[in-house]
Amino acid sequence: MFKPSSCRAAPLRRALPSHSSALLNPLAANVSKQCSGILVRRASTVTEGETTNKKERVVVLGSGWAGYGFSRALDPSKYERVMISPRSYFVFTPLLASTAVGTLEFRATLESVRRLGLDHFHQGWADDIDFNRKVIRVEANVSDDLRSRVNREISKNKTPELPSKQGEMFEVPYDKLVIACGSYSQTFGIEGVREHAYFLRDVGDARRIRLKVLQLFEKAALPTTSDEQRKKLLHFAIVGGGPTGIEFAAELHDLIRDDLSKLYPDLQKFVGITVYDVAPKVLPMFDQSLATYAMNHFKREGIQVKTEHHLTRIRPDEDTEGCMKLNIKEYGDEEVHAGIVVWSTGLMQNPLIEKLTGKAFECPPIAGNEELGGQIRLQKNPKTGSILTDHHLRVNVVPKDAPPENGNTYPNPGAMTDVYAIGDCAAIPDQALPATAQVASQKAVYLAKQFNKGNAGQQDFKFKNWGTMTYLGNWKAIHQSSADEMKGWTAWVLWRTAYLTKSMSVRNKIMVPIYWCITWLFGRHTSRF
Amino acid sequence: MFKPSSCRAAPLRRALPSHSSALLNPLAANVSKQCSGILVRRASTVTEGETTNKKERVVVLGSGWAGYGFSRALDPSKYERVMISPRSYFVFTPLLASTAVGTLEFRATLESVRRLGLDHFHQGWADDIDFNRKVIRVEANVSDDLRSRVNREISKNKTPELPSKQGEMFEVPYDKLVIACGSYSQTFGIEGVREHAYFLRDVGDARRIRLKVLQLFEKAALPTTSDEQRKKLLHFAIVGGGPTGIEFAAELHDLIRDDLSKLYPDLQKFVGITVYDVAPKVLPMFDQSLATYAMNHFKREGIQVKTEHHLTRIRPDEDTEGCMKLNIKEYGDEEVHAGIVVWSTGLMQNPLIEKLTGKAFECPPIAGNEELGGQIRLQKNPKTGSILTDHHLRVNVVPKDAPPENGNTYPNPGAMTDVYAIGDCAAIPDQALPATAQVASQKAVYLAKQFNKGNAGQQDFKFKNWGTMTYLGNWKAIHQSSADEMKGWTAWVLWRTAYLTKSMSVRNKIMVPIYWCITWLFGRHTSRF
Repeated sequence: MFKPSSCRAAPLRRALPSHSSALLNPLAANVSKQCSGILVRRASTVTEGETTNKKERVVVLGSGWAGYGFSRALDPSKYERVMISPRSYFVFTPLLASTAVGTLEFRATLESVRRLGLDHFHQGWADDIDFNRKVIRVEANVSDDLRSRVNREISKNKTPELPSKQGEMFEVPYDKLVIACGSYSQTFGIEGVREHAYFLRDVGDARRIRLKVLQLFEKAALPTTSDEQRKKLLHFAIVGGGPTGIEFAAELHDLIRDDLSKLYPDLQKFVGITVYDVAPKVLPMFDQSLATYAMNHFKREGIQVKTEHHLTRIRPDEDTEGCMKLNIKEYGDEEVHAGIVVWSTGLMQNPLIEKLTGKAFECPPIAGNEELGGQIRLQKNPKTGSILTDHHLRVNVVPKDAPPENGNTYPNPGAMTDVYAIGDCAAIPDQALPATAQVASQKAVYLAKQFNKGNAGQQDFKFKNWGTMTYLGNWKAIHQSSADEMKGWTAWVLWRTAYLTKSMSVRNKIMVPIYWCITWLFGRHTSRF
Repeated sequence: MFKPSSCRAAPLRRALPSHSSALLNPLAANVSKQCSGILVRRASTVTEGETTNKKERVVVLGSGWAGYGFSRALDPSKYERVMISPRSYFVFTPLLASTAVGTLEFRATLESVRRLGLDHFHQGWADDIDFNRKVIRVEANVSDDLRSRVNREISKNKTPELPSKQGEMFEVPYDKLVIACGSYSQTFGIEGVREHAYFLRDVGDARRIRLKVLQLFEKAALPTTSDEQRKKLLHFAIVGGGPTGIEFAAELHDLIRDDLSKLYPDLQKFVGITVYDVAPKVLPMFDQSLATYAMNHFKREGIQVKTEHHLTRIRPDEDTEGCMKLNIKEYGDEEVHAGIVVWSTGLMQNPLIEKLTGKAFECPPIAGNEELGGQIRLQKNPKTGSILTDHHLRVNVVPKDAPPENGNTYPNPGAMTDVYAIGDCAAIPDQALPATAQVASQKAVYLAKQFNKGNAGQQDFKFKNWGTMTYLGNWKAIHQSSADEMKGWTAWVLWRTAYLTKSMSVRNKIMVPIYWCITWLFGRHTSRF
């Protein structure tokens, strides 16, 4: 959290000349905070018995809406706060599509984990959890490529001669654990998606998309490129008609109309944007009237929406470098060409959740069910694979040999008293909540408040629907909540302002409106960097 | 150039709903500007005879201080302006070191080439020039990696099984040519430098350095890292004691003292920064008193400066991943360890200049020397390899068999009337001007003015020394010109403000001070992105 006092002290200290050697006389006497070697030593002494006023150590896995939101709201005077995440920042995901087209600077969507002033932060992936010893095994992420672990398999297949590096492994103990490690993009095992499609989940994804879109225009503008190739290169395919796919299509259209049309007027006749979805209708979370409004708007802008279309394969086009060929079931053998395929069709569980829900372990202390004992396993949602929790967000457990497909309705699961799960990787059996930032955020704040009050496990979590919003391009949006519906420009401004006010640091609350103004005045940056 | 009228029109157009389809009804009727297919067709018709009011086509190679500055000052009503550069932006190099440590956002140092409103821009490398046919052969750069051409050789050595992709080749004709393609970093053929050292010439370099520095701290903070390894990882070696190396050392020190010392207090005792130089003194362009002031300042801050040290090899340390071993002649067999080696020792000619100065060609029309004829070659500086020009910045030519080592003093070179050279790749024989932004910038503006007045080749170029400045960290700088000397904080603010006012777009004139304020208030961003 931003502290006004430190903000005033810092510049003074910096402006005055420092005659002491900051490097040779460092703050070495300070209490250890980030040097993890110390952490491990401290942790090991905990088990040997400590003074009674020692704070409980709460470890949270993840730095997304759930993990970051929880850590931000947890009282540091009551708990030792530890975070494990492969990235050292939180991403304000509703603005990712804007950064992918250059309306906003990438960094304006980021909040550094460091500003939370956590007791410890480990940049790495939780690889496994031992619920009996209460330790997490962590693989450090010190690689350049932030996608390194996710993509290790892909690169291994592509260039088997390059060694796939694994990070250092170490253990982190916990008193209470909050699993908030999110999910991956669902690719349904479709050939070529993981290798050739572009996702839009993290800021690195947004940067890759931005570079690729600008590249496609450069490539199409080359004198050596034929008109036929131009048409292939400048076809932008978006798979998935949920809010992310629709918003990206809208933002991309804005970029092309406002900025690229001036730089490449001759190329405009080759441009096409198509959204593909398997469902009969896009934006399923909106009422038919709003969805129809959105589709009419897209139609006017020249964005095609193809519902009930099934993509079955993506592969590179040998004839046009940088271009892809898409197989679509409804088109038979005829392939569709696209310069980029942006993928946003849904979520799948990440490897940690798969590992945790797939293994049996000795029963640790559990609440509410004394029948459980011996070998148990986590209860999982048979459809999505996510971890099921009770209404206090504590992780449910069932006997090891409980029928796997019956997880959802196992009559009397127990709940672990020291392990919680929130965000996209978790669900409550009888509440069908979507995997959205809103749900993750509300669960995070609820859980931190319960921790702060010291009555975790007593009051039920209740979701309040603040409504759903999708940007449609050209400064228009649709918004729907249980109370009302809105469409158009005013709704967009009000809603986004409210969101920003709620969720971002003072730094970004200042910077985001500045970027908006600058883009509005001078246009988007179109340099390939 | 920023036009207030267009800045007001744009937002209005954007805020109002557009009911026409921008994509389906593009501005196709407009005059071709960027689509290069058209360009080539137009160019070919030029040779067949055109109307007499056709503007001369001036092609400039490069988008640095020389190329960008020239294009910006050239009158578009008098000339058709064409630029060829592998990157689509100009970099404000004095601020690169600031971006490498996160004081400024990377994009704040960039000016898009597109904002110049050129007639044509080709993103690619000039591969060769035919001075008789008056055409440039261009290799397109549409790759993700902006260093792709420079690094093709390196990657080929490292992973020979990966194909090294070459861009498409095409030709661009010119009436007048301005060679302003700059230079590369000089590595003196020292083993491992090109593979393992970090340069600081472009914004991509700054980004790589920033990620690496943050990574080194993360790696050192891991519980699995030993104290000995921490010391190796957190040794930052800078080779070259010119302004770039000294400024980077200063900025890095600021980053560590102001920001990283709070995040990693326990690691501060392992941190070391060393500047190595082969010369007996660093900052040779400054008077002894200012250089001594700088060295005393560094000593107080704990930055080591090792003069008369010769680095002979860099190779990876097998025992500590991500760490390098440096051989230094003065230390014998004992190797120095460093987490990063930042290289800024001087300049060497780029492959195009090498190719151009190495080949003979038929004599095109030249001025001032009717003796020349038959096979000629460009006159080059025997020491630096740069192209020599006359006082009007026209490229000098000498007979093919003129003694190569005598180029500097060849009695009566001719000057090509249609080819000019400015910036780091060019020099005037009897003017020993340094390869700086200031010289490049002044030559660029002089040449454009001569072009605009229509009297290129009449008035001599004269360099005015505006002074030299180096940032020393902790808000202090030294500044020296023929008139005066300054040191300390005020000098730094005044000088930098003047520089910004002179050289940047309105957008960055607004954004850079905003970033400075935000960093001053909230600290530097330390997220690894």
